[in-house]
Amino acid sequence: VSGSGPGLDRDGLDGDLRDLVEGTLDGQQLALSRLISHIEDRKPGYRAAMRAIYRESGDARIIGITGQPGAGKSTLVDKVVDRYREQGLTVGVIAVDPSSPYSGGSVLGDRIRQTSRSEDPEVFFRSMSSRGQGGGLAAATFDVIHAMDAFGKDVVLIETVGAGQNEVDIVSVAETVCVVTIPGAGDDIQANKAGILEIADVFAVNKADLDGAHTTRKELLQMIRIGNDLDDSDERRWMPPIELTTATRGEGVDELLEAFDDHYEFLTDTGRLSEERAARFRQELRTHVDAELSALVDRLVAARAPDHEDGDPHTGAEAVLAPLRAAVEAELDGD
Amino acid sequence: VSGSGPGLDRDGLDGDLRDLVEGTLDGQQLALSRLISHIEDRKPGYRAAMRAIYRESGDARIIGITGQPGAGKSTLVDKVVDRYREQGLTVGVIAVDPSSPYSGGSVLGDRIRQTSRSEDPEVFFRSMSSRGQGGGLAAATFDVIHAMDAFGKDVVLIETVGAGQNEVDIVSVAETVCVVTIPGAGDDIQANKAGILEIADVFAVNKADLDGAHTTRKELLQMIRIGNDLDDSDERRWMPPIELTTATRGEGVDELLEAFDDHYEFLTDTGRLSEERAARFRQELRTHVDAELSALVDRLVAARAPDHEDGDPHTGAEAVLAPLRAAVEAELDGD
Repeated sequence: VSGSGPGLDRDGLDGDLRDLVEGTLDGQQLALSRLISHIEDRKPGYRAAMRAIYRESGDARIIGITGQPGAGKSTLVDKVVDRYREQGLTVGVIAVDPSSPYSGGSVLGDRIRQTSRSEDPEVFFRSMSSRGQGGGLAAATFDVIHAMDAFGKDVVLIETVGAGQNEVDIVSVAETVCVVTIPGAGDDIQANKAGILEIADVFAVNKADLDGAHTTRKELLQMIRIGNDLDDSDERRWMPPIELTTATRGEGVDELLEAFDDHYEFLTDTGRLSEERAARFRQELRTHVDAELSALVDRLVAARAPDHEDGDPHTGAEAVLAPLRAAVEAELDGD
Repeated sequence: VSGSGPGLDRDGLDGDLRDLVEGTLDGQQLALSRLISHIEDRKPGYRAAMRAIYRESGDARIIGITGQPGAGKSTLVDKVVDRYREQGLTVGVIAVDPSSPYSGGSVLGDRIRQTSRSEDPEVFFRSMSSRGQGGGLAAATFDVIHAMDAFGKDVVLIETVGAGQNEVDIVSVAETVCVVTIPGAGDDIQANKAGILEIADVFAVNKADLDGAHTTRKELLQMIRIGNDLDDSDERRWMPPIELTTATRGEGVDELLEAFDDHYEFLTDTGRLSEERAARFRQELRTHVDAELSALVDRLVAARAPDHEDGDPHTGAEAVLAPLRAAVEAELDGD
């Protein structure tokens, strides 16, 4: 009998996986890296491992950084990591790129991109792509956040490349979301303003040494004001600050971190932090349900749906839905 | 007893709805407009109505037109409609805009936008937004396509505004998909090329009177060539033609319609048309299943998922999945 304690034994984790979980909770990078690969690939026992991990998570600050391609997010993330390290905080970075052919794991964290902190053992970098995701990229990303959190990272940064709905869904589980844009991106912002206003807690106008940074800031400010006037019923509202940054020179990064801190303070002072965590819990749960349910429905469709020559889509949908609807009714009947 | 015949009676349609279905099949615009509102709102009996409609559909050509905001899609669609009318064909237009506050129905088709064919009874225009969609915008759009088809339209054009995944999913049920772009959009195309190459059967470089049209055409051509070299195993492959159009002056529109015709001929000659229809049937069926299943899962989550203070997302997901998984196993057990 190992010294793992009753908590881990109860989860029914087998020896190897239990070692990975224990190693992760002990702060061993190799264990974390291997555990992430295990849960990313949805290998047997990953749910039990995640239960054990989840119980030990909840202390890290989760910050999302997103924005259009070419906005300089990677460089900005690099500088944000530097500043947190200067404050003595440990950092995990998850770079999500659905279109990337790279994913997974070199031994001490996967560093496919050279960062200024490549040799710093207190920075753990992991890139994630759609490749090899059994249960969906969002579901796996949520699990990796918890693993880094339970490992002991003070700050977990999620960087999403691109601006698709999938990436927005992923980054929106962060407590603080920073939307990165660049001077002259007014049209793109206008086109996506509904989605951006909904998720942005802080704006960074990066490459602020280019012409038009102040114009872009004004456009954003106006957008925020209009958005907030339309919904001013809530006294506890947060007006997203707009920081001008030039990540390549490290300019504006201190102010950006102050904005993150201000937002975190706002969340705790207003009680929103626990609201956010409850919402994130629901979103994670639903993501895990949908990932597995999709495969179950595939099997039903293959077995029950008529050929397109013999039926119509609604009748076919009914044939698939009937057993599922009956199961839900039966399950809720006793309530 | 009306003269509706046994086909409609068997569907169990009540009097009013049966009248709308019959009127639609008779080519009455008012009936079509009211039927669309009924199925769009998922009012009682809409599934039975869709079954009756579906049996009478399948003759229309379905053409999707999509592309970035500001590409001039509306004007181009207008000119395409004009040309089809000059050929003596009747046309239905479905303009899908998830962000639009407008939807639904004025009496003779909903014409919130002035078109050159506003007074032409052989052109039926309908705009659709996310507002008031019980079962999802995509599911409702598919049903409206069938309604216009069964009504007797020779061509149904689906115009999607914006370039989100949802719009791509909607337009991809069309037999022929035209992606509209503009000179100088090279970066946007590069950023989205995977999605664009997958769905585009024909490209239109609109606003071709602007500088850079030929450069954009060359960029597209190169992208198509690379994409096809990577997947040259299929002898029956289609190389998407690239047409330069200036919709405001009607230039290039004849050539665009010829490209649509060429693609349709390719589909029929190679037997792909029936493959496309089988795929579309499956996609429609799945969309209808997912729309209702989502509501069923909401109920299970509300009843069975733990609070975020008492559990973890994976255990919560298990509680929701268990009855659904059991139902699928039981249903497929006899197979």
